[in-house]
Amino acid sequence: MDGKSSSETRGKPIRCRAAVCRKPGEPLVIEEIMVAPPMAREVRIRVICTSLCQSDITFWKLKDFPAIFPRILGHEAIGVVESVGEDVDEVTEGDTVIPIFLSDCGECGDCNSKKSNLCSKFPFKVSPWMPRYETSRFTDLKGEVLYHFLSVSSFTEYTVVDIAHVTKIDSSIPPNRACLLSCGVSTGFGAAWRTANVETGSTVAIFGLGSIGLAVAEGARLCGATKIIGVDVNPNKFEIGKKFGVTDFVNAGDCGNKSVTQMVNEITGGGADYCFECVGLPSLVQEAYACCRKGWGKAIVLGVAKPGSQVNLSSYDVLHSGKTLMGSLFGGLKAKTDIPILIKRYLDKELQLDKFVTHEVKFDDINKAFDLLIEGQSLRCVIWMDK
Amino acid sequence: MDGKSSSETRGKPIRCRAAVCRKPGEPLVIEEIMVAPPMAREVRIRVICTSLCQSDITFWKLKDFPAIFPRILGHEAIGVVESVGEDVDEVTEGDTVIPIFLSDCGECGDCNSKKSNLCSKFPFKVSPWMPRYETSRFTDLKGEVLYHFLSVSSFTEYTVVDIAHVTKIDSSIPPNRACLLSCGVSTGFGAAWRTANVETGSTVAIFGLGSIGLAVAEGARLCGATKIIGVDVNPNKFEIGKKFGVTDFVNAGDCGNKSVTQMVNEITGGGADYCFECVGLPSLVQEAYACCRKGWGKAIVLGVAKPGSQVNLSSYDVLHSGKTLMGSLFGGLKAKTDIPILIKRYLDKELQLDKFVTHEVKFDDINKAFDLLIEGQSLRCVIWMDK
Repeated sequence: MDGKSSSETRGKPIRCRAAVCRKPGEPLVIEEIMVAPPMAREVRIRVICTSLCQSDITFWKLKDFPAIFPRILGHEAIGVVESVGEDVDEVTEGDTVIPIFLSDCGECGDCNSKKSNLCSKFPFKVSPWMPRYETSRFTDLKGEVLYHFLSVSSFTEYTVVDIAHVTKIDSSIPPNRACLLSCGVSTGFGAAWRTANVETGSTVAIFGLGSIGLAVAEGARLCGATKIIGVDVNPNKFEIGKKFGVTDFVNAGDCGNKSVTQMVNEITGGGADYCFECVGLPSLVQEAYACCRKGWGKAIVLGVAKPGSQVNLSSYDVLHSGKTLMGSLFGGLKAKTDIPILIKRYLDKELQLDKFVTHEVKFDDINKAFDLLIEGQSLRCVIWMDK
Repeated sequence: MDGKSSSETRGKPIRCRAAVCRKPGEPLVIEEIMVAPPMAREVRIRVICTSLCQSDITFWKLKDFPAIFPRILGHEAIGVVESVGEDVDEVTEGDTVIPIFLSDCGECGDCNSKKSNLCSKFPFKVSPWMPRYETSRFTDLKGEVLYHFLSVSSFTEYTVVDIAHVTKIDSSIPPNRACLLSCGVSTGFGAAWRTANVETGSTVAIFGLGSIGLAVAEGARLCGATKIIGVDVNPNKFEIGKKFGVTDFVNAGDCGNKSVTQMVNEITGGGADYCFECVGLPSLVQEAYACCRKGWGKAIVLGVAKPGSQVNLSSYDVLHSGKTLMGSLFGGLKAKTDIPILIKRYLDKELQLDKFVTHEVKFDDINKAFDLLIEGQSLRCVIWMDK
């Protein structure tokens, strides 16, 4: 259905189109579904556009737990509030909002501390349910439950999101830019800005120049880093990286007779102040740690590794190197505080979002967005719901 | 020899008594040795007293590299400058000084940065030589070279130390207190104070209540931590720990049907803000990491593990927990800046050094100090050179 006025739909189920993942790895099927009204502290959102993130691909392909089907994937999006459940006063019908996979409940010890962005009331988990009630708001036309994904599920014209996962934004930002802040770009940018707190004049190495890695570069560039080294097996990534501030490149697949660590050491004169792992390989985390400057270097992990993987560090290095190992989920950002700041920085022409959008497709062509990302052709492909 | 006046000895070799370790694990032998004059940027020190640290035991027992014999062990000490080499203007004859195993050269990027205490001009290594010239100042009466230890070698009436390893101190502190600041107490205290920067009202868990762990407790106490949990397999450590601020105790050898992590979680309501590993076991580092509070907990490693050991962390935890893993060498202290602060805090009756000194012996009884520490009877045994 197109965006009907809320007075017609408020409090009622909405019948609309969704791209449902019924089996792992099979093309999504656009079908009609029913979206229940929001329960208390929930918001029903008409999705304007959504973009495809690597984690959608991961969970689309995944066959084992926590995979579950049929499911509505998608978690980078922007939309307009269609209606709200009871006890929601943070947003109202017609507000422009971004759903975020990481909760910002505003009530727990973590949300009220400057030191954490990991809500402890609704801790991160890959659940098939709405976070507050552990139930679904989606059914197909046969009445079968469709599962949620990362508390967002944006591959549908309408979705329901808990208010803890909703950030109200300035509607003057174009939707095909704003949606990127829902996950990938915020994660990378935030890792440099909030988690690492990269300082002016510092050196940065980024392992993996996909969208997340490029967003780290963009964050490091705006924080004033003077050397931003991209490390990737694909040498074409240097040209792309330059657009986001990458100053040097190490081809991890061909360093001649040197190791990546030696290359980074030479470029930085002893190791990078901040090393970001953006792929999800334990061996690369170890390499990032090795490339950190002794004395104060920080290795920051953004990549999602396979379940069961381990990072192994030498005990000697842990004690004697002065280096730090830490992770960065959603870039250390607190959604409701930090997303509006990122939007302002985009509107002020500081933060470059435009260059991340390499493709745009209409909802019917959503599977093309999958192909483009899998083939490495796209950074972000925006999927428009009403086109 | 007793402390002769510098005018008699300056520029000449000094014949004096030293406790030489000739074979691993065998009692030290007190014999006469020759101590060469200091070279440029070196200082010859008459040792007043020295105390025994666990690392002395480790290297006394060690048979393989980097063990080397005959060697003069000892690295916690206080002394008086007998003479100085060329180009030394930081100290002069008669000054009271503490030798420190970790260099503070004052010239390199690390020594000039607030972020690091790991001098890059003379980086930490377990070398048998003086750091600047890679030679020894010790010979026995047959002319055979005796090796140095940790740039200090304090089990001798006279030693030579590079100026980068010498901190001038206020001589009003009793020597049998000041020597503790040369390594162990500073390491533990500094880890809480400088590395972790423990805040008022925070929670701390300490794994291993030896002298280092107790010094962490003392540091955490003075930083205003409200819960200081000692974790040890020896339940007697709780009573000792209380003297240094330990408020709660977990008997790691007998938690009933609970794990140490569960116990620490219960006491702290979700994990300690700071967890310090003071033993040197990778498994305990992993337990300390597990006991950190999600969102912001820091695991800080002080314990020296066996060569080749590895710390293994789950990739999922690294990314999703918000926890940090870091090491703390010499407590993150910069010797020349921070030791005088610790001395002032002792003289101001804040920092408790007295309670660490459980035994005192004369130099001839140095092997008794080894027995006491090995048997777990002593925290710190002070060895007086002139008694």
